[in-house]
Amino acid sequence: MNTLNLSSSPVTQPRYVQMAARMADLIESGAFQPGQRLPSVRDTAAQEGVSISTAMQAFRWLEDKGLAQAKPKAGYFVSKLRKRIDLPMVGQPPAHSVPVQRQSRTDVIRSEGGSAIRVNLGGTCPRDSMLFDEDRVRVAVSRATRVYRRTLVSYTNEAGTPALQNAVAQRALHLGCSLRGEDVVITSSCIHAVSLCLMAVTSPGDVVALESPTFFGFLDLLEALSLRVVEIPSHPRTGLSLPALQLALDTQPIKAVLAVPTLSNPLGAIMPLADKKALVRMLVPYRIPLIEDVVFNDLLASDERRKAVKSFDRDGSVMVCGSFSKTLAPGIRLGWVEAGRWKDRVAALQRVQGAATNEVLEHALADLLTQTAYESQMRRLSATMKFRLHEARRLVSGHFPKGTRVSDPAAGYTLWVELPQGMNSMLLFEQAASEGIAFGPGQLFSATDRYAHCLRLSFSGAWGEAEKAGLVRLGQLAQGLWPQRARA
Amino acid sequence: MNTLNLSSSPVTQPRYVQMAARMADLIESGAFQPGQRLPSVRDTAAQEGVSISTAMQAFRWLEDKGLAQAKPKAGYFVSKLRKRIDLPMVGQPPAHSVPVQRQSRTDVIRSEGGSAIRVNLGGTCPRDSMLFDEDRVRVAVSRATRVYRRTLVSYTNEAGTPALQNAVAQRALHLGCSLRGEDVVITSSCIHAVSLCLMAVTSPGDVVALESPTFFGFLDLLEALSLRVVEIPSHPRTGLSLPALQLALDTQPIKAVLAVPTLSNPLGAIMPLADKKALVRMLVPYRIPLIEDVVFNDLLASDERRKAVKSFDRDGSVMVCGSFSKTLAPGIRLGWVEAGRWKDRVAALQRVQGAATNEVLEHALADLLTQTAYESQMRRLSATMKFRLHEARRLVSGHFPKGTRVSDPAAGYTLWVELPQGMNSMLLFEQAASEGIAFGPGQLFSATDRYAHCLRLSFSGAWGEAEKAGLVRLGQLAQGLWPQRARA
Repeated sequence: MNTLNLSSSPVTQPRYVQMAARMADLIESGAFQPGQRLPSVRDTAAQEGVSISTAMQAFRWLEDKGLAQAKPKAGYFVSKLRKRIDLPMVGQPPAHSVPVQRQSRTDVIRSEGGSAIRVNLGGTCPRDSMLFDEDRVRVAVSRATRVYRRTLVSYTNEAGTPALQNAVAQRALHLGCSLRGEDVVITSSCIHAVSLCLMAVTSPGDVVALESPTFFGFLDLLEALSLRVVEIPSHPRTGLSLPALQLALDTQPIKAVLAVPTLSNPLGAIMPLADKKALVRMLVPYRIPLIEDVVFNDLLASDERRKAVKSFDRDGSVMVCGSFSKTLAPGIRLGWVEAGRWKDRVAALQRVQGAATNEVLEHALADLLTQTAYESQMRRLSATMKFRLHEARRLVSGHFPKGTRVSDPAAGYTLWVELPQGMNSMLLFEQAASEGIAFGPGQLFSATDRYAHCLRLSFSGAWGEAEKAGLVRLGQLAQGLWPQRARA
Repeated sequence: MNTLNLSSSPVTQPRYVQMAARMADLIESGAFQPGQRLPSVRDTAAQEGVSISTAMQAFRWLEDKGLAQAKPKAGYFVSKLRKRIDLPMVGQPPAHSVPVQRQSRTDVIRSEGGSAIRVNLGGTCPRDSMLFDEDRVRVAVSRATRVYRRTLVSYTNEAGTPALQNAVAQRALHLGCSLRGEDVVITSSCIHAVSLCLMAVTSPGDVVALESPTFFGFLDLLEALSLRVVEIPSHPRTGLSLPALQLALDTQPIKAVLAVPTLSNPLGAIMPLADKKALVRMLVPYRIPLIEDVVFNDLLASDERRKAVKSFDRDGSVMVCGSFSKTLAPGIRLGWVEAGRWKDRVAALQRVQGAATNEVLEHALADLLTQTAYESQMRRLSATMKFRLHEARRLVSGHFPKGTRVSDPAAGYTLWVELPQGMNSMLLFEQAASEGIAFGPGQLFSATDRYAHCLRLSFSGAWGEAEKAGLVRLGQLAQGLWPQRARA
C-alpha cells in the first residue's frame, strides 16, 4: 500500500510520492481550491521531467488520499469532501480558578488502555517507529558511544553538554529565537522542563493559566504540584484567546501562563504571529512568565508560523521548553529549556533534583540536530502526518453522528472531535475499549467536565487498514449510542 | 607507579597486586593487628605458588601503601602509624528544626571550584574514570544500541524497562532485600529518586530528619522543596544516633527520615545491623518513611554490613533509593527507587514530571548488573579506594595541625577531617583555592555553621603524586593559618 510505503521509508521516497507530496501541500495550503481542476497528467509529467506513468502514479496517490478525484475524460479535480465538516466550537471554561483533582480519572483510562487494545488512537507518545529514521538515530548513538565512551564512567553535574546546548540554540534560530547555548538547560523531556519552570515560579496553591482544552499531561503535573488552574478559551485555528487571557490576568492572581502556541495539543491551533507578539507584551506588566512548549514547531518546517512566542521576547519573560521526542527520535528522552529571567533558578533546580542526563546521548542528539538532513526529515514527517489527518477527517466526516465537528490542524498528530452536545465520550470509550479500540476521552483535557462530548484522536501510532476500520467502527458505535443523531 | 597500575586496570591486575590486596584486606579487617609480624616472604611465596621476587613485590607494595613496615633482618610488620589519629567527635546539632538557606554558599563554592583547580579533593562525583571498567560499559551500551535500536524511535511512559527493574531487584537481594521488579521505578539518579520520595511524602514547610553531618546534595534538595531540617547526631563509625532520633520524633512534627545508613556521606559510617533493624521498628508508630540511600552499599561486597535497612522492613515503611553511578558506571545516569507504601504515588510523580529515562541505557545497565563480573569488580574498586583512604589518612595524620581528627571508613570515597575548634575551613578553602587545591568545606554539610572547623576530602578523582603533594600542602596551609597548633 502507498500509505505504508510512505511511512516506512521517510528518507528515500519514490519520485512519484515526492511529486504528490508537493501537490498535496498546494492543496492543503489552499493554492488549489476544492473543486478546482488540477493540471493535466501530461503537463505535470513534462514540467517535472518524468514519464507519464510516474505522473499518473502521483495523481492516483492523491486520489487514494482523498485529496483529488478523477472525472472521466475531464482529468483530476481537488476533492470537495474535505471541507464538509465544521470546526469545533471555542470552549467557554469558567473564569475562576479550580484545583486539579483527577488523578483517579487518568488512572482509569490508563488501565483501560492496556494490552487488549488493537487499534490505538489514544496514545500520547509517537509509537510508530516508521515515522522516524531509526538507522540515522542508531548510527548517531553508536558513534557517540564510541567517541565519548569516557563520559560513561565519569560525570559532571552541569546543565548539559555544550555541544548539545549549542545545537539546541542553533535549531532555535529556526523558531526565530536567538538563544545562548550556555543559557540552555538540558532536561529529560519537554514536560520535565515545564515541571522545572513551574517549580521555579510557583508555590502550592498558586494559579496557572492554560489553554482550554489542554494537554492532559499539564493537568497531571499541576495536580502533582498542588497548583490551581484557570482555563482560557482557545480557538481551534488560532489558539489562546488573548482578550480572555487579559480578563483572567486582571481578575485572578495568575503566576504563570502555560501554553503550546504552535500546534497546540489537542486542537492543533497555531497562534497568528501578531498574537504571539501581543502575548509577550501583555505579560510584561504582570511580571509573570509564559512557559512556552515548542515541541511541535519543527513540524511546520519552512513555514513562518513556526516562530515561537519567545522570538518576540525582549526581557526574558518567556521560559521556552522543547524536546525532539515528537519529531526526531522519541526514544532519546532529552528535552531542554531556556528559562529567561528565571534561568539560574531552573538550572539550580535541575541540578539539585539530580535529574541528570547521559552525555553520550546528548552528543548523539547534538549530532542529529546539526545534520543537514534534519529539515527535510521534518518536511517528510509533516507531509506523512498531514495525509493521515486528512484521511482521518474524511472518515470522521463520513461515519460519525450528524453534527460532529472536527479540528483541521496544519500539522501534528491529533484531531479534536466534538460530538453533538449531550453525547458522553466516556460511554463511547467504554464500548470502544471492549472492542479493543482506544482514544482520548474529552474529560482528560480539562480540569472540569466541559469536554465530556469531545474526544481526541491520535495518529502517531500505526496507521493502516485496521486503524481506518477502527475509526469507522468508532463512528458506528457513536451512532449506535445516540441513534437519533445517526447519519442517513 | 603501583598506585596507578592498580587504579588504571581494575580488571587485570598483576599477580603481586592481587596478593597484596588480599593481605591488605586482612590487615584492614584487623586479622593482623598493628605491630604484628606478617608471614615471611619465603613462606608467602611458597603458599601462593609464586617466585620469591613476586612475593617481595607484594610486600613492597604494602610498604608503599603504608600498611606494612620492613624491619632489617626481622621481616615485615603491620604498620602502627595508621591508628595514631582520633576519630571525629559526634556532632551536637540543635534539637529544633531549621529552614535550609544556603544556596548562595553552595554557589560560591561551586564557582571557586572552577577550571583553575589542579588538585581536586572536593568533587562529589566519581571523576577518575580509571576506577571503572570503561570497556565493559561501552560494550554493553553499544550492544544495547544495536539490539534495542527500535526503542530509540518510540517510547512509553512506564516506570522502567522490566529487564532493568528485575536486574535491580536481583541486585537488591545482595542487600538482603526481596523487591518485586514491577515495584521498582527507574529514575535519572539516586538523588532524583530521593527527590520523588520527598515530594511524595512532604509539603513545603514540613520537617525532615537527616544525619549530621549530611550530604550537601540533600540540603540543596530540601531547600529547593522549601522543607525544614532537623539534624540528628551521627557517630563516625556507627552513624545515626537512634536515641537522638527518638527524641526528635517525640518532639518534632517529622514527616520523613532521610539517611545513608551504609557508608554515609561524608562520615563513611555504617549502622550496625541491630540498629538498622531497630530503626525500622522505631518509625512504624509514627507512620513516616525512612528514605534510605543505598548507593554505597555495594562497596561492601561480601560483607554482611552492606545489608540495607530495607531488608528489615515488613510494612513498606522504607523507600529505598539507589543508583550505580558511584560503583559501576557514573556516566550512565540512572537510578531507582522502591517506595514501599508510597510506590504508586512515586510512580505517578515520576511519570507526570516527565522524568523519563532512555530504554537503550536501561537495557545496557541491566546487562551490566547481571554480569557475573559485577561482584569482583566491586571488591577491586573497594580495595583500590581502601588504599587511597589509608594513604590519605596517613598524610593527614602526618601533616595537619596537632589535634586534627579524621574518620576511618571501611570503604567509600571520602574522609571527614575535623580541625581543632576555632579553625575555619572556609579560610583554608580560600587559601587552598588560590593554589589550585579544592576540598569540601564543613559548612556545606549542615544547615547550621556547626562544622565550620571541618572539611571533607574526596578521593574519587585522580590520586597520584600531585594529589598527595596537594594534601600535604593543605596541611601546611592549615598549620600556617593557625601556627599555635602547628606540629613540631
